[in-house]
Amino acid sequence: MQIILLSGGPGKRLWPLSNGTRTKQFLKLLPKTDGSHESMVQRMVRQIGESGLEAEITLAAAASHHDAIISQLGRETQLVTEPERRHTFPAIALACAYLSKEKHLPDDEIVVVLPCDTFTETGYFEAVKRMAQVVETDAAELVLMGIKPTEPSTKFGYLVPDPADSSIVKSFTEKPDSERAAELLRMGAFWNGGAFGFRLGYMRRIAERYIPAESFAEFRARYTELPRISFDYEVAEKARRLGAVYFDGQWKDLGTWETLSNELDHSTIGYVIDNGTSETTAINELNIPLVCHGTQHLIVAASPDGILVADKTKADSLKESVVTINRRPMFEERRWGSYKVIDNIEFPDGYCALTKQLTLNPGAAISYQRHTFREEVWTFIDGTGEIVLDGERRSVGRGDVVNIPKMQMHALRALTPLTFIEVQKGTNLIEEDIERFPFEW
Amino acid sequence: MQIILLSGGPGKRLWPLSNGTRTKQFLKLLPKTDGSHESMVQRMVRQIGESGLEAEITLAAAASHHDAIISQLGRETQLVTEPERRHTFPAIALACAYLSKEKHLPDDEIVVVLPCDTFTETGYFEAVKRMAQVVETDAAELVLMGIKPTEPSTKFGYLVPDPADSSIVKSFTEKPDSERAAELLRMGAFWNGGAFGFRLGYMRRIAERYIPAESFAEFRARYTELPRISFDYEVAEKARRLGAVYFDGQWKDLGTWETLSNELDHSTIGYVIDNGTSETTAINELNIPLVCHGTQHLIVAASPDGILVADKTKADSLKESVVTINRRPMFEERRWGSYKVIDNIEFPDGYCALTKQLTLNPGAAISYQRHTFREEVWTFIDGTGEIVLDGERRSVGRGDVVNIPKMQMHALRALTPLTFIEVQKGTNLIEEDIERFPFEW
Repeated sequence: MQIILLSGGPGKRLWPLSNGTRTKQFLKLLPKTDGSHESMVQRMVRQIGESGLEAEITLAAAASHHDAIISQLGRETQLVTEPERRHTFPAIALACAYLSKEKHLPDDEIVVVLPCDTFTETGYFEAVKRMAQVVETDAAELVLMGIKPTEPSTKFGYLVPDPADSSIVKSFTEKPDSERAAELLRMGAFWNGGAFGFRLGYMRRIAERYIPAESFAEFRARYTELPRISFDYEVAEKARRLGAVYFDGQWKDLGTWETLSNELDHSTIGYVIDNGTSETTAINELNIPLVCHGTQHLIVAASPDGILVADKTKADSLKESVVTINRRPMFEERRWGSYKVIDNIEFPDGYCALTKQLTLNPGAAISYQRHTFREEVWTFIDGTGEIVLDGERRSVGRGDVVNIPKMQMHALRALTPLTFIEVQKGTNLIEEDIERFPFEW
Repeated sequence: MQIILLSGGPGKRLWPLSNGTRTKQFLKLLPKTDGSHESMVQRMVRQIGESGLEAEITLAAAASHHDAIISQLGRETQLVTEPERRHTFPAIALACAYLSKEKHLPDDEIVVVLPCDTFTETGYFEAVKRMAQVVETDAAELVLMGIKPTEPSTKFGYLVPDPADSSIVKSFTEKPDSERAAELLRMGAFWNGGAFGFRLGYMRRIAERYIPAESFAEFRARYTELPRISFDYEVAEKARRLGAVYFDGQWKDLGTWETLSNELDHSTIGYVIDNGTSETTAINELNIPLVCHGTQHLIVAASPDGILVADKTKADSLKESVVTINRRPMFEERRWGSYKVIDNIEFPDGYCALTKQLTLNPGAAISYQRHTFREEVWTFIDGTGEIVLDGERRSVGRGDVVNIPKMQMHALRALTPLTFIEVQKGTNLIEEDIERFPFEW
């Protein structure tokens, strides 16, 4: 059995913790039993592992999520990235093309697609197992997971079970208006939980109607030929025979500050001093104290990207507040580790200085590169590694200072976790001022 | 006429903007007509200059305020610092000893002592002029400024004017209980505004009862012989004949977040995005955006020292929240300029890295010094200056990188405003790891 985990789109609804590259599923906010925290995608992968499903997992994600996924789930993660952002149908079709055309799995292989940002519990994976069983019977082309609704929401698709056989869906309606939603509830409808089960050949055939490619490489190269449409509209609504299983346990979308703050065990994460507050959720990723004093129903979040102080009851309209913020990300998890911007000055004549604290993971390397407009000063403060400067290789570690003038070729590799302070200085301090060259370590 | 400006004590009531070294009178928060902001002490000195009083100003301050005063008021400021913190009587006695024993001003010189953190307007300085006129008549030994009370506060001294001659005080009561305060109000009493007028010889004689010193240097060296007592108890309560003038214009103590936020013209200072808030005062000294969304009656303040989110109505008990914070200051104004800490890491083995952004004012210099336990890397990003390394002098400016190993002697002087990033690394990153040596620029 194959599970495709769909890594959701970008979003600033959890700003300042989420930014252009760091989306909600990668925020390490969810409490683990050992007191540490994990992200939504880490939790989902852990839960699948613990469920006994014995499924192989493939991540279907945006290219911009690549580094965060490798960093959080490890180098061995099976990952299919979209050449460009389209929609859920193209993303799932691409992942299926990988399974059939690259891994050469047979047409009768059972595939279940799951969103990676559902906050759920063990019973959910029992329902996934039942989805696979229904697919196995070939009673339906496509099997959905029905979620017991709590309100006539207009955010979900609805499925109405066949009264004669509840494992068959009588009708499927994608995102109805609220009147129709209320009517569907009266008919005993369930929400569509965004999980889809099918045999691999079913999706292979649908995808080949758009791109009759021989290889995965060809399919991926022609990715833009797939329509920008959701899986629900393109596949679920058109399916001749829809099956369903049902789940009425914990099932939540933690996509807003309001819903997320309800799931956090403690009301605070990070260096927070909480004094006489009520219903205040405070998350501090900075290394300075955050004092919340006598506040009520607030969300307070601080990260290198900014500080948010929002009334919990009004957090749904937060997007309006942050849409005007268009700054470079101040914290990023990358393939090689992570960095945060600790200082950023621009002088009136356009000269800039950008200071970062960076950590390279053991074995990871920064590509062999040079810059036209900026110099860099690296001060190593922990760990060991190797640096290459214009072809010359040497060891670096704690206490070393390396001055990299404009146009000097440089590469860096960590042997142990390697932390350094980088001061970039010059004009045009943009990520695009980089030429990369091949280098064999 | 001499004015002694009394620079108040430390306090964390305006944390995170105030910290151990940066007290409320130095916060540049008050709006000027040109759109910029000034501190309480800057406003007071400007107001005295504009008042036409033609007074010479002496600052009486704690030693820890020295650098902030020079930075905000200039090198030419006449400043008397206490060898240690005692109370208002010793501080005023010391400043008077300076005027009589160092500047050799005559006994009949008129002195008015003013608190530097009163938020007031032009009329206040008219009242100061009237104080000097009453001192001139020798109708009283000590002249106070009576402030029209708005409530039976227990925070102030009270003076009751003589019904026959209101320029004479019939009785003076320091900080009564609330019952007595109400009674005093019914008797037509005024608050004591903390301003004191007298002839220099009056204070010289009182001070010499404790320290019969010939010179100011001797007086200052024996400073600890003065009792730890307020000027009100030691002088005002004991005066045989007290005079008074009265002022009923704007007169406020901006010592708490609640009172300060009422005086700020805009509800926000710094990089703040305010969306649908009411009665929210937001001050952001960091260079990342602060979003306030739908909040009500909040004070939000962010500085390199920390972040405060407090309910305005509960801000008076804030001290309880911040009393547990005992960290090194993250921003300081110093004699030579200012710095902020932008990063601070400690590794499990005790090795530390502390990264600062520093700016030296033109002409200012850092003393010739060396460190035993730490190395420093200086990356210059703006301005020009001179550096001395083990006796060798050279120019530094934008783009230069200087690596200072342990025990290397180094000094630095700015020719134009000189900004650099400093990475300190080593064990024991404390301010005390410093040996200073004389150096002639």
